[in-house]
Amino acid sequence: MITEQTIIEAHNRIKPFIHQTPVLTSGSLDEIAGCMLFFKSENFQKVGAFKARGAMNAVLSLSREQRARGVATHSSGNHAQALARAAKIMGTKAYIVMPRTAPQIKKQGVIAYGGEIFECEPTLKSREETLATVVKEKGAHIIHPFNNYEVIAGQATAAKEFFEEINYLDFIIAPVGGGGLLSGTGLAAKFFSPQTIVMGAEPEGADDAYRSMESGMIEPSQSDSVADGLLTTLGTKTFPIIQETVKKIITVSDVEIISAMRLVWERLKIIIEPSAAVAFAALLKNKAQFRSKNVGIILSGGNIDLERAGKLFASV
Amino acid sequence: MITEQTIIEAHNRIKPFIHQTPVLTSGSLDEIAGCMLFFKSENFQKVGAFKARGAMNAVLSLSREQRARGVATHSSGNHAQALARAAKIMGTKAYIVMPRTAPQIKKQGVIAYGGEIFECEPTLKSREETLATVVKEKGAHIIHPFNNYEVIAGQATAAKEFFEEINYLDFIIAPVGGGGLLSGTGLAAKFFSPQTIVMGAEPEGADDAYRSMESGMIEPSQSDSVADGLLTTLGTKTFPIIQETVKKIITVSDVEIISAMRLVWERLKIIIEPSAAVAFAALLKNKAQFRSKNVGIILSGGNIDLERAGKLFASV
Repeated sequence: MITEQTIIEAHNRIKPFIHQTPVLTSGSLDEIAGCMLFFKSENFQKVGAFKARGAMNAVLSLSREQRARGVATHSSGNHAQALARAAKIMGTKAYIVMPRTAPQIKKQGVIAYGGEIFECEPTLKSREETLATVVKEKGAHIIHPFNNYEVIAGQATAAKEFFEEINYLDFIIAPVGGGGLLSGTGLAAKFFSPQTIVMGAEPEGADDAYRSMESGMIEPSQSDSVADGLLTTLGTKTFPIIQETVKKIITVSDVEIISAMRLVWERLKIIIEPSAAVAFAALLKNKAQFRSKNVGIILSGGNIDLERAGKLFASV
Repeated sequence: MITEQTIIEAHNRIKPFIHQTPVLTSGSLDEIAGCMLFFKSENFQKVGAFKARGAMNAVLSLSREQRARGVATHSSGNHAQALARAAKIMGTKAYIVMPRTAPQIKKQGVIAYGGEIFECEPTLKSREETLATVVKEKGAHIIHPFNNYEVIAGQATAAKEFFEEINYLDFIIAPVGGGGLLSGTGLAAKFFSPQTIVMGAEPEGADDAYRSMESGMIEPSQSDSVADGLLTTLGTKTFPIIQETVKKIITVSDVEIISAMRLVWERLKIIIEPSAAVAFAALLKNKAQFRSKNVGIILSGGNIDLERAGKLFASV
């Protein structure tokens, strides 16, 4: 289980290899939202996303023998780059199973970090089968994108840093796909900022976390949203932590996600990917609930083809 | 004349009203450029551009009586917003003459800050005639966008901050339009970092500063470039300072500007406008000259319609 000490140790372990990302604010966005907003900008993180934290912690936590045989994963994108980078830093190989539909910019990132890509169909079944084949052949250690305690402890360091910088957050909102970031955020709040209420934000077209919280068991995802980083289903390790530490999940439409993304580009002058706009979209949809509060938003990453972004903006 | 003390006083005067903007770095851009790059990110400045500094200093430097009658200017964009904001902060009126072709986002910015817009033709003649009419009617004090010592001293504070944070820059490169930022940067280097060589960067289609440095007199601008903030001609106050403090002017094509802008968006994950990409484009065009050096780049602003940016990226 993950304790306060686990997260402190993870943070100390990965600190030399990650950025302490900035917390941005904007008077004009505060006005629009009717509250005080703080944006933890993980788009400025190594590999352009918070995933650098969890992957680095997981690779650093392996024994020398495990590490020598390489690491492997299936991932729609940012975890793939993050794992390839962590492996490269530690002088080992990364074998990455990616759906053939993954954004080109994310594949290029993996290759740039020396990772080896194995393409599969964009289904969980194809991902898992391809990964099993690769692992059998290479003897590599699987680092799951989110259903892994070292990964969760690593992702928790984003919120830990956030609370260290802004120690008066009434709320913190993080996006949820597989739940690595959200469960880590929930644990960080529990240990380092217990007065902060934790919310998850999810696309309507992949609202498995919302339904899972309702039913009390892990529900399958339908997987249809512009937020391509959030299409996965909760894991057996992330779901119980989310149940314990997260107050509620807010769902938002693709149009709301794209509108929130545009506001962040225009007002904060930074590039974020659709998945990273989901938490802000959730806030904008529920302004009354957050009125005059201090609200922390985790902007999870910034990896998007500029052409794709242009098409998304034109579509709403 | 502007002394070291003038700039220090300007900085102290405007500090409560401006951001100390971050200096960003990127390993992947260093690799591409073959040197160590430091980006002073004035796109995160108030009103989205360094112009907030000069306008604020100019308005704060007026007497109470002058201020009460309001301020006026002609500007293609960022100075207009900056002056409107400074006037609003000080409780007075701003009358802004803008070419009817100015980007919509910049007009909206002026209106949002309570400025009153007077449209004119996109020629210097029409700008000046319209401004004269407005000033006669309102009795307002003209704050020129660059040919004004308080404005120059204000713009100089960007480089002053930059040198305070990175005190080992071998070069600093700033874009040049009318020369407010570049002359200020030159003076800041002279007083606060005399070992740093100052370069200007300019669009080929508006290379009046380059030609003026060659001929020794102010040459007219042809005014054709995507870098819409750099189309003006040097002023009688900025040119002598540039002659004294700037080593050379590098010109770049629109394609080079757009490519540099794309690299900044993709790698730094920030939004900059075309004018702000000109200094980085100049560096990329002359890599050999900067090899292994510590180079400071001033990213001057981030005000661009996302649709226009998409079209620019698609055009190269």
